[in-house]
Amino acid sequence: MSEDYRSMWDELGLDPAAHDALLGVLGKAYQEIYLAQKNRPQGMEYFDFVMSEVHGLRIRELLDEKKAGRKIIGSYCVFVPEEIVLAAGATLVGLCSGADFATEEVEKLLPRNTCALIKSAFGFKIGKVCPYLESADMVVGENTCDGKKKAYESLGQLVENLYVMDLPQVKSEVGRSLLRSEYIRFQAAVEKLTGVKITAKSLKDAIDTVNAKRSAIHRLSSLRRANPAPISGLDALLANQVFFYDNPARFTESVNRICDELEKRIADKGGVFPDKTPRILVSGCPQAVPNWKLPMIVETSGAVIVGEESCVGERGARNPTDDSGETVEELLDAIVERYFQVDCAIFTPNRDRVDHILEMVDAYRADGVIHYGLQFCQPYLMESIPVEKELEAKNIPCLRIETDYSMEDVGQLKTRVEAFIEQLS
Amino acid sequence: MSEDYRSMWDELGLDPAAHDALLGVLGKAYQEIYLAQKNRPQGMEYFDFVMSEVHGLRIRELLDEKKAGRKIIGSYCVFVPEEIVLAAGATLVGLCSGADFATEEVEKLLPRNTCALIKSAFGFKIGKVCPYLESADMVVGENTCDGKKKAYESLGQLVENLYVMDLPQVKSEVGRSLLRSEYIRFQAAVEKLTGVKITAKSLKDAIDTVNAKRSAIHRLSSLRRANPAPISGLDALLANQVFFYDNPARFTESVNRICDELEKRIADKGGVFPDKTPRILVSGCPQAVPNWKLPMIVETSGAVIVGEESCVGERGARNPTDDSGETVEELLDAIVERYFQVDCAIFTPNRDRVDHILEMVDAYRADGVIHYGLQFCQPYLMESIPVEKELEAKNIPCLRIETDYSMEDVGQLKTRVEAFIEQLS
Ligand code: SF4
Ligand code: SF4
Ligand code: SF4
Ligand code: SF4
Repeated sequence: MSEDYRSMWDELGLDPAAHDALLGVLGKAYQEIYLAQKNRPQGMEYFDFVMSEVHGLRIRELLDEKKAGRKIIGSYCVFVPEEIVLAAGATLVGLCSGADFATEEVEKLLPRNTCALIKSAFGFKIGKVCPYLESADMVVGENTCDGKKKAYESLGQLVENLYVMDLPQVKSEVGRSLLRSEYIRFQAAVEKLTGVKITAKSLKDAIDTVNAKRSAIHRLSSLRRANPAPISGLDALLANQVFFYDNPARFTESVNRICDELEKRIADKGGVFPDKTPRILVSGCPQAVPNWKLPMIVETSGAVIVGEESCVGERGARNPTDDSGETVEELLDAIVERYFQVDCAIFTPNRDRVDHILEMVDAYRADGVIHYGLQFCQPYLMESIPVEKELEAKNIPCLRIETDYSMEDVGQLKTRVEAFIEQLS
Repeated sequence: MSEDYRSMWDELGLDPAAHDALLGVLGKAYQEIYLAQKNRPQGMEYFDFVMSEVHGLRIRELLDEKKAGRKIIGSYCVFVPEEIVLAAGATLVGLCSGADFATEEVEKLLPRNTCALIKSAFGFKIGKVCPYLESADMVVGENTCDGKKKAYESLGQLVENLYVMDLPQVKSEVGRSLLRSEYIRFQAAVEKLTGVKITAKSLKDAIDTVNAKRSAIHRLSSLRRANPAPISGLDALLANQVFFYDNPARFTESVNRICDELEKRIADKGGVFPDKTPRILVSGCPQAVPNWKLPMIVETSGAVIVGEESCVGERGARNPTDDSGETVEELLDAIVERYFQVDCAIFTPNRDRVDHILEMVDAYRADGVIHYGLQFCQPYLMESIPVEKELEAKNIPCLRIETDYSMEDVGQLKTRVEAFIEQLS
């Protein structure tokens, strides 16, 4: 960090020792995993800076926004519509957490057989180490998987102002109207929090801001179709992770700047790894900062990741929202329409996801798919079996991985990943 | 079995060797667990007979019904309304399975981290050992937990005519209308299957039949309030299990007969165990035939189970349906109302369940609660933690057990249960 943020962290009520420990681990991991990479696009300097200031400058910005009367809303799922938050003059930050913390305390509140993501969310709260969570004026949970759905009942005891959004399980007409009524209820809650009434103008502007951010990250994804790949999977994942908490306009600009650079690189036939490096699509559970375990293993084993079929990736970021509506109601319909397409494994049936994986394999010229499932994540682990079957029927090699945030299985995973990559070359 | 049913089983396509093996295990378990009990009510002879003919006489009856043109519908959850099935002239049988089977094959289709109940349902299908499943003209799945919701996607490949019912996750007004529209959709599906149009008269009769069955089992439960307990938890559980597949009228009569006997026993101050035997309420996941592991451990360790807060128990069977409506629509509203009160852990929030546990502790004069959670069952395992906290705050001892269908942990569980019972005396 370039500045001393200690008093800011104190004000937020972070636990100084625990927070220092977390930053230490984060910094070290970033150094060893990210900065050790070769042939990185120059534009990644922006993300290096973002990461070095992840609990510093960005938090100061959020606190400045708060001082100016803006509200901060935290979320754990891509189903919480940033458009509605922005339209009410508030800021949305993603809280999905990618590291174990305070595990012993967490396991007093959650069964041991809970996915690492949920445990991490609790650990960050209990351990008082997440300045985003502590800055939030409202935290939004959602009824997606059983794990999160039930965990919010306990999280509500720890987090002030936890708002829970219900979600459908089936994409039926009733399912759509549930989503719609929940977005309307959310709109009212956000308006109440901010004291700002959403107008057609503010909602349209918000849609455009989010569309621009999605379109930039989509542009970045598309450039990864090139062979050789112009950017590492690690770097692209980082951009997808920062998507959730950076200032939207600045993020859009920075990603587009990297894309300009990558276009030149592609024109020069430049790549981040040697030609003929096996290309891998990762599909499955979201990978939240600083969960860089799988891409680190893959990209130090002789392959490159060319896409993420994930909520931190294309599943979450694709599909712009139609901004042609002229009333709040029409624009809200368009938002419902857009989010209703998210093909999370919590839905049944979820044919769209398999089709999207096949589409991505094709578009990104992937040689194989690694299905990434967090241990105890029933929706994605369940879905991984038919996904694998379908891929294999089309002769697309698939490796199913089930893991958590610990580093204990890295050696074993690396052996399996290496054998898989071997088979692709 | 008193008769040779071999040709019937062959016709149903059961695997003779595997089925023999299952019946062997079942018979032996019944002998050792049930018939070894002392002081059983004489009326339990009926259930001994039912169990000895569980794959025989009852299946013959179902096949006779089929021959007469009646349809058989199988279900895995108490949310599938028997009233609608009966009103359309069909028969509902519960399929919830309580034993491991074909585990190796099952784990090719389901993640290892799936609850034993779901694995068992697959195992019975893959192993071709369940005559109920093989007799069914339609099998109904439901979107309750993630495990079942996603498993039905694969089960649909194995079972002909699998129908999936969507369910709400929140008891909101939208949740209620989802349940209502799903029951209407189910009504249409059942009417289509049977060719019988449901009328106000047939629906009212069906409600009365099911109410009678529920009221008989409720009467049995109420008698367990007596001290000493007049019937063992094992025997009462069996009645609750047979509830799901016996002929409703005969079941009602047989349970009432046992109740008459128990009333006399209570008047004579008679009990199944000695006076002052510690009394335990079991709460949590359903225990399906032949999953008698926990009550067997408890009741051979010096305590008596006086109630089951479970879907195979009071959670599933309580609350009669108002039969005063005069149109199909009104009666259907009453059915929705009744089922909407089921406080399964899949709902959030689920305050009612904790209140019901406290109520039951009080009503059944329980000295302690054992929370029974199947391993990997996120809804109930998650909920067990706040349940335990709330009980302990009221000085009600609580033991949380997490287990599966294997017998490997019986010794270890027995040690924990004995220590718990020790603390109650
Ligand atoms: S994977 Fe599902 S639950 Fe997780 S962020 Fe995506 S949509 Fe939400
Ligand atoms: S990874 Fe799976 S279990 Fe964990 S929060 Fe996401 S959907 Fe739920
Ligand atoms: S516990 Fe829940 S899912 Fe299971 S039978 Fe009961 S209501 Fe259905
Ligand atoms: S025991 Fe739990 S995980 Fe298993 S089917 Fe029932 S609710 Fe689902």
